[in-house]
Parts: sequence; C-alpha cells; structure tokens
Amino acid sequence: MQSNYTPLTPQSFLRRNARVYPGKTAMVYEGRATSYAAFYDRARRLASALKGIGIGLEDKVAVLTPNVPAHLECDFGIPMAGAVIVAVNYRLNAQEIAFIINHCDAKALVVDWEFLPLIQPVMGELKAIEKIVVVRDPGVKTPWQPQGSVDYEAFLAGGDPACEGILPADENQTIAINYTSGTTGNPKGVMYTHRSAYLNAACDLLQMNMSADSVYLWTLPMFHCNGWCYTWGVTAIGGTHVCLRKIVPKEVVTLMVEQKVTHFCGAPIVLRAVADGAAEAGLKRFPHKVKVSVAAAPPSPAVIEAMLSLNVDVVHVYGLTETYGPTTVCEVQPEWRNLGSAELARRMARQGVPYLLSEDLGVLHPDGRPVPADGNTLGEVCMKGNIVMQGYYKNPQATAEALRDGWFHSGDLGVLHPDGYIELRDRAKDIIISGGENISTIEVENTLYAHPAVQDVAVVSKPDEKWGEVPVAFVTLREGAQAGEEELIAFVRERLAHYKAPKAVVFQTLPRTSTGKVQKYVLRDQMWAGQAKRIGG
Amino acid sequence: MQSNYTPLTPQSFLRRNARVYPGKTAMVYEGRATSYAAFYDRARRLASALKGIGIGLEDKVAVLTPNVPAHLECDFGIPMAGAVIVAVNYRLNAQEIAFIINHCDAKALVVDWEFLPLIQPVMGELKAIEKIVVVRDPGVKTPWQPQGSVDYEAFLAGGDPACEGILPADENQTIAINYTSGTTGNPKGVMYTHRSAYLNAACDLLQMNMSADSVYLWTLPMFHCNGWCYTWGVTAIGGTHVCLRKIVPKEVVTLMVEQKVTHFCGAPIVLRAVADGAAEAGLKRFPHKVKVSVAAAPPSPAVIEAMLSLNVDVVHVYGLTETYGPTTVCEVQPEWRNLGSAELARRMARQGVPYLLSEDLGVLHPDGRPVPADGNTLGEVCMKGNIVMQGYYKNPQATAEALRDGWFHSGDLGVLHPDGYIELRDRAKDIIISGGENISTIEVENTLYAHPAVQDVAVVSKPDEKWGEVPVAFVTLREGAQAGEEELIAFVRERLAHYKAPKAVVFQTLPRTSTGKVQKYVLRDQMWAGQAKRIGG
Repeated sequence: MQSNYTPLTPQSFLRRNARVYPGKTAMVYEGRATSYAAFYDRARRLASALKGIGIGLEDKVAVLTPNVPAHLECDFGIPMAGAVIVAVNYRLNAQEIAFIINHCDAKALVVDWEFLPLIQPVMGELKAIEKIVVVRDPGVKTPWQPQGSVDYEAFLAGGDPACEGILPADENQTIAINYTSGTTGNPKGVMYTHRSAYLNAACDLLQMNMSADSVYLWTLPMFHCNGWCYTWGVTAIGGTHVCLRKIVPKEVVTLMVEQKVTHFCGAPIVLRAVADGAAEAGLKRFPHKVKVSVAAAPPSPAVIEAMLSLNVDVVHVYGLTETYGPTTVCEVQPEWRNLGSAELARRMARQGVPYLLSEDLGVLHPDGRPVPADGNTLGEVCMKGNIVMQGYYKNPQATAEALRDGWFHSGDLGVLHPDGYIELRDRAKDIIISGGENISTIEVENTLYAHPAVQDVAVVSKPDEKWGEVPVAFVTLREGAQAGEEELIAFVRERLAHYKAPKAVVFQTLPRTSTGKVQKYVLRDQMWAGQAKRIGG
Repeated sequence: MQSNYTPLTPQSFLRRNARVYPGKTAMVYEGRATSYAAFYDRARRLASALKGIGIGLEDKVAVLTPNVPAHLECDFGIPMAGAVIVAVNYRLNAQEIAFIINHCDAKALVVDWEFLPLIQPVMGELKAIEKIVVVRDPGVKTPWQPQGSVDYEAFLAGGDPACEGILPADENQTIAINYTSGTTGNPKGVMYTHRSAYLNAACDLLQMNMSADSVYLWTLPMFHCNGWCYTWGVTAIGGTHVCLRKIVPKEVVTLMVEQKVTHFCGAPIVLRAVADGAAEAGLKRFPHKVKVSVAAAPPSPAVIEAMLSLNVDVVHVYGLTETYGPTTVCEVQPEWRNLGSAELARRMARQGVPYLLSEDLGVLHPDGRPVPADGNTLGEVCMKGNIVMQGYYKNPQATAEALRDGWFHSGDLGVLHPDGYIELRDRAKDIIISGGENISTIEVENTLYAHPAVQDVAVVSKPDEKWGEVPVAFVTLREGAQAGEEELIAFVRERLAHYKAPKAVVFQTLPRTSTGKVQKYVLRDQMWAGQAKRIGG
C-alpha cells in the first residue's frame, strides 16, 4: 500500500476506533452494550464468514432488519468483504422486497426474525440468493425459518476475527445500493461510493457538532440512505449507537433520559412522537442538551417550540436518496436568535444552503440558467459534488436523465431567496398550473397548517374546464377541532393570492407510503379519475 | 464539470461560507472585522491579480507575514489562481529565507512591512521573483520598500472580485510547500496536496469539536504547516479567525476575553504565556470554555492544571511538517477523568493514537516489523494514509528515503503502550524544540565548525524555564587556538536565526563511542541532571 494515499472508506472509522476506544460502548441494545473492540471483532467475523460462503468483490448482500446492532455490523462487515450493502425498507410488502433483492442480484440476505413473514411468501422467487442469515434476539423462537438458513450468531462464530477488511482498489467503488421508494414505477437502486459515504459521514458530524461523547438514538431507519450515513458517522467519531427496534413514544423518551442521548434524526412525525412521549412520561425538559436533525418536511413552528422547550435543538436538513440523505441544511444565522418564534420558524422551514461538504446547489431554469435570487422564480433544485450518487444500478437511462449537464436533477421545484437559501415549493410532478400560473402545493399546505384546527393536509390538482387545473385540499382535523370548507378556503384567500386558494376541501385521513410520505398520487387519481393528467403532472 | 465528483480542495470551504455566512465575521484584526463575503471577495481579487501578473498553474508564491488577514487571504487566493503557497518562517535569517524562496522558484512574494528588513539584504539574490507585494497595516510607513513592489491593497484593488477559483484538475495537485527546519543540511520543501489539506482541515474540526460559533485565536504561526491546516479548517466551519501580529501575554488574554475565543493552538510556551497573561490581567478563569491543541512537546502537569483552572481544556497532539501537522492525538478516555492530576498528566503526555482521518500509525523495527505493544521496545514512529506529504520538492532522494516500504518514516523513536498509545522517547536526529521552534543541532554544529578555532563540537538541549529547552554547545578548541563563549555565540547569531544560537558554551573533550560517534546522550544527561528530560527530546 502507498504511504501517502488510502482510498477513503468508512471501514477506516471502525478500525481506528477499535484501537482508540476498545473498551468504550459502541452500541447499546435492550440494555446490552457492545464495545468498539467487540464491534470490530464481529464485523471482521462477518466479513470472513461472508467470504467463506463465496461472497466477494461487488457481490450484493441484502439486509432486512430493524435498527438492531446486526445492521450496524453489516454496514461495516459487508464492505470489509469487498461486497455491497443493500439495506431494504422493511415497510415494503413481500413483492416489493423480492423485486429489490432480485434486481440487485443479492447473493446473501441477512434478515431479522421479525421480518421472516415478509420473505416467506416470496422465498421461491429470490433467484440469486445463496444464503440466508437469520438475526434473532436472545430467546426468540420463530415458527418458520428458511431451509438451509443459518443463525447470525452461528454465522459469526464461524468467521475469523483476524480477517482484514478489503480496502476498495478505487474509492469510487460501490459500497451500498439504496432503493428509492419509487412513487412512479419500480424503485431505482441508488449507488453509493466508499468515498462519498466517508465524506458525508464526516459532514454529518460537523453539521451536528458531534464528539466522542455523543450518544445517538436510532429513530431514523438504518435502511434510509444507510441511516443518512450516521451508521458510519457515529462510528467515526467514537460515539455510542443506541439501537431501537420500534418507536414507542414513552419508551423512546425514557431511553433518551437513561442513555443520555444527545442526537437523533427523523421526519417531523418522530419529533411529535418525542413530544408526545415526554408528555406521557411527565418530562418537562431533558436534563441535557439534545440535537435533532429533521428532514422529509419542514418542522412546523409548533414542533420547533415543543422541541426547544424540551431542550432539543432542531436542525432542518433536506436531501434525497440520490444525495446520500441530507445535502442542504438550514443553517441558523446568529442574528436569527433574536427573532420571534413565528419568524424563526418561517426561516427555519426553508431547506437552506449546501451541507458543509456538499459543494454546489443550484435552482435552475429548464435551460440550465440559474434563477434569480428573488425568492419567487421557480426552478429545479439541482446538486453537484462528491455527495451525489454514482448512478442508478442497471439503469443507464434513468442515470443519464438524472445526471445531465453536470448536475443532479432532483425533480424538486424551489426558489432561491436573496440570502442564498433555497426553499422547496413542490415536486415537479405535484406543481399545479392553473390558468398558466404555478401554484406550489407546499405553500398552500403550509398556509393551511397555520390554521389551529388543521392537523394534516395535502393539496393536489383537479381538472377544471376553465383553468385547466385548480387546487383541492385534503384535510384531517385535530381531534375535537372544527372547521368547515368555506372557513378554510377563506383562511387561505386572506393570506395568499386568491388563485392559490383551494376550490374545494375534502375531509379525510391521508394515504401515506411506508416511509411516511403522503401519497399525493392516490389523491390525484381520485380527482382525475377517467381523465388523462397532463404529462409531467 | 462532473455532477458527482469534485476534486477535494479547501477552496470549496470559502466559496461555501461566503454564500452561507456572507455577513458573519470571518476575521478580526486589531478591532477591524472582515465578513465572509469580503474575505471571499478579497481572495478572488488576489487570485485575479496574481493571474494578471502571469502567475499560473503550479507557480509558487512565497508569503512572509505574521498572522495577519493577508496571510489567510493568500491561503485561499493563491490556490484559486492555480498556484502554490509557500509560507515562509519569518524567524529565519535573510540567507535562509533567500534559500527557500530560490529553492521553490517563487515568482512572487507577499511580504509584511515588518519583515522588509529581512529581505532587504538579499534582494539581489531572489532569482525568480517577478513581483513583490507589500502588506501594510493602516498608517504604517516603511523606510525602505523594494523597487517595483506594489502595495497589497492596491494589488487587490486591481483584481476582479468575480474571478472564479481554478479547481485542481487532480486533487493530488500541490497546494502548498512548507519548508522543514532542515535537521541535516538545507531545509526540505514538503509538498501538500489539495486533497490532504481538505481532509486534515476537516479532521482538526472533528478533533477539536469546532462549530460555526467557534472563535479561533492565531497564536500558532500560519507558516507552520499552514497553521496546521486551521487556516482552512476554521474557514470551513464558518468560525471566526482572530489574527494576531505578536504574542504579548496580557494582550492575548484580554483579546481572548473580548473576542470570546474558544480555540487556539501552540507549543507549551504559548500555554505558559496565556497562564502568565491571565495572572497579569488578574483573570482567574475564562468566562467561557476554551480548548487548546498543544504540540511540539508534551504539556507538563503544571501547565495542564493551570489551563484547567483557567477553564481551558488541553488536547495533546503530535505530528511533523510531513504529516500536515498533527497526525496523532492523545484522546482522553472517559475513565481518565477520574484519575488524579499527576496520573492524568502522565497519560496525556503520550503522543497517543491516530488523528481521526489519519489512517495508520505504527512503531516499527528497522526491518519493518511492528514493535510489541509493551511500552518499552523502541522503534521508529511511522505513518501512512492521506495525511502524509506527497514528497520533498525537487528532492527525490530524500522523498524515497522518507516514503519507503509503504510508510512515512518520521525519524522519531518511540514505544507502543499496551493500550495502543504511542509515546516518543527520542528524536533520532536530536532535534531541539525551543519555544515551539525546531532547532537542528547539526545545523548549529556545522555553523560552529566554520569557526577557525573550533575543532570539535556537539550541540544538545538543556532545560529552560521560558523556552522549554535551549541549545548548549560543547566545544573542543584546536590546539593553540583561542575563542571565548561570547565570541562563539555571536558567531552563530551572525549566521543563523538568533533563537538557534547556543545559550552557553562548555569547553571540554567530547565523549565518543568506539566507532567515533559523539555520545550526545552523555552530554544531554549532564545538562538534564536531576531533571526528567522532556519526552521526545
């Protein structure tokens, strides 16, 4: 090996901290702690055992587990064998899971006992799988287990703890493939490189001011962009991973107090769970400072205030699977600290500026020119830099479409504010064009969220003879709250241009994907039944 | 440019934060603040102005200034022009400075008014210099200025603030050359790459838990390994650089309180200056937490205690110019916090474990095998990874010697403790560290050998309250020749930087081994009798 060059790979993080912090707790799960030395030992055994069953360079290993220690061990042990991690979303159904496992040609599958029923119906269809390894909590017995499968602990016992990790010959080699949720058509396999995983992990640590004293709670699924790279990042800094099979609000809060959790991540729904859990547990305020990175949707003023009063600082980030998770952060400027909470929340709701190591972020016209920084002109949010995917696995056409003209095209529409912050206005496919005017469904939704009776809202288009299309709001009211259609429409008209106000309000529960995203297309289909929606809509 | 790959270069840090924190203070100097927007503007003007005088790809630009804002602007503006920073040690004498400027073929020189007298005597010898740019504090008038030189501010005024930085085509391109103090013969030019500068800057931030709220005081010379990469790191995190022309203990402490300084670096002498300054200023404790990274010699128990009582956390790091500054850190284990201060200091005096992104650190036998982790067996401390120099400029032989068998050979001798921490035991080359500056004993010896009365000479360190250690010369005079202590000291002061001159001369016959080598350790023992020699001395 060269004296002055090592390929960037997250493997280095674990090797270093097994040396630096051998006795320190790397992972906690249900009261059992694993030291950094044991973590490294187990990852090496896993790498060795995988090699032993013929897993080698660029082979794919699928992982279908909740946020348990075995998942973290896979995040290191699989690349140490030269192979590629394919962390699968366990909220998908059996057919969707089979599609992913087959599409990536996975040769082995590490599956948690809880999800065995998910693969049982499709066992006959998993074409390339040669070995199934079953992760089992102590004492758990399963009614069914795949033929020829092996227990994870037995598998590790057969591995060699002296096995050296295989460094990638090229740091741009693939370390993981993460499948998008695929709102249209089949999911796409987003390829991550060792180099970019390393850089984004370091970036998480810088953005969230983490240190070896940090204790990270796994509220974010590890299958989401490899836990947005915190699987690697927390290990890099020598922090402690607190694993979590399931989010039960009161239990989460109890765990946070017990383990002195300093950091966690999640969608706003996770923050609400923490607020609810604190209320249930009678906790007014965490005894220590906590920091949460929130993504998927902007945190509402109410959520921000609830978190602050609990001693939790909120960091709003935005990104996509294609950008290794967060690629922008709404950095809070020093002077914002003097703003009132409503104005602070309004600014924090923006997606912000490039993540520290993200390089470029642009809002571009279709012809590639940047939009003016006027907070008004709509363009496509585009990224370029080291934290952009390598491409879609076995899908050169989609890759070429997404990575063109030197930019990754996110499909999200936004504006650039005069202060350089971006703000999303819509997904390209969600934007409503009414009488030639763009209507951002997110803008209308955020306005409705400010109404005290509104708990949940989604705005989609419906066909209109005169305007082409017009907005309709689907609303869930808070328990015990009351508000009529006219009142809500008037509420929007008072606050936005009249053409942006919904023409109708439908009261119902919103359909969501397994990852918690509102399935707007289901609502849209309701509205457009029997009519062809415009292309690109 | 590619959508998913950008060469790693510190230039990206400034570009990002000019966007993210345009109005935030990037630098403070003598009460004047420079915002990030202005910092970027000035760096771009500098790059443009350099291009304007014909500076291009891989051209060298020498910088000879104290820790003033212009130096930081050079650390970005020069690479933005595609050129290479050569930050010169202003404690050297005119001949030494001329050697460096000539050896690297510098085409331009940025020099501070205070150091004009340093270059005046050698002006005729600076072969490749085409332009001299003079940095001048407001209102300062100089008695002499090189012909054809231009004022820094005028030079910048002629530059284009819209000038785009040139990204390196290859991230392993040279960004800086830093000259070692030259333990044998002439100083060697250590080549730094854009990639490694970027990585080590990020690593500093992680090791020192820096954030955008961090305020960094420039007690460490910016010419030392580019301020150990903090020039780039503090900029990356959006912190504030507090510039400092000179270390005056009481003023330093006043500045730290006024500017709410959170971080600084230096040799133990800098820590003592802060302790002295606090005593002078009547300050018992900084009102906010401060963190200091100390290198060059282990901090003594007294210094650690003095710092802790002042609310300053001490982080002990070790490295060389060849490793971009720090490459090891003595990470304080959680359980050490319960130790008594003497035992804590003993553990903290060790050089420690690899810096977070440093990759490998070994203590090796001459045959390349690692020594056992017994805290006793001596070996050479060796490093490998991304934070190792590219090589010595125009010195392939020295490069091949240093970078052999896949390791960088530091020339430092140490042991590996059972807990994986390294500890230096001796410098293979008997280097003396005085006030944080390396003094090559061989260089001083060679100078004394030039005196007609000197027959034999050996230089070793002796303890010194203020400087840590200072050089002492043991001299045997030629038969019949005469020379006094003062004369010999003056002889050296005329030829070398003053700090390199011996503080005392002892006339005696030198102890030698059977093969004729001077037994320096015998002389050193004489000087350090009754005192523990510093580790690493």
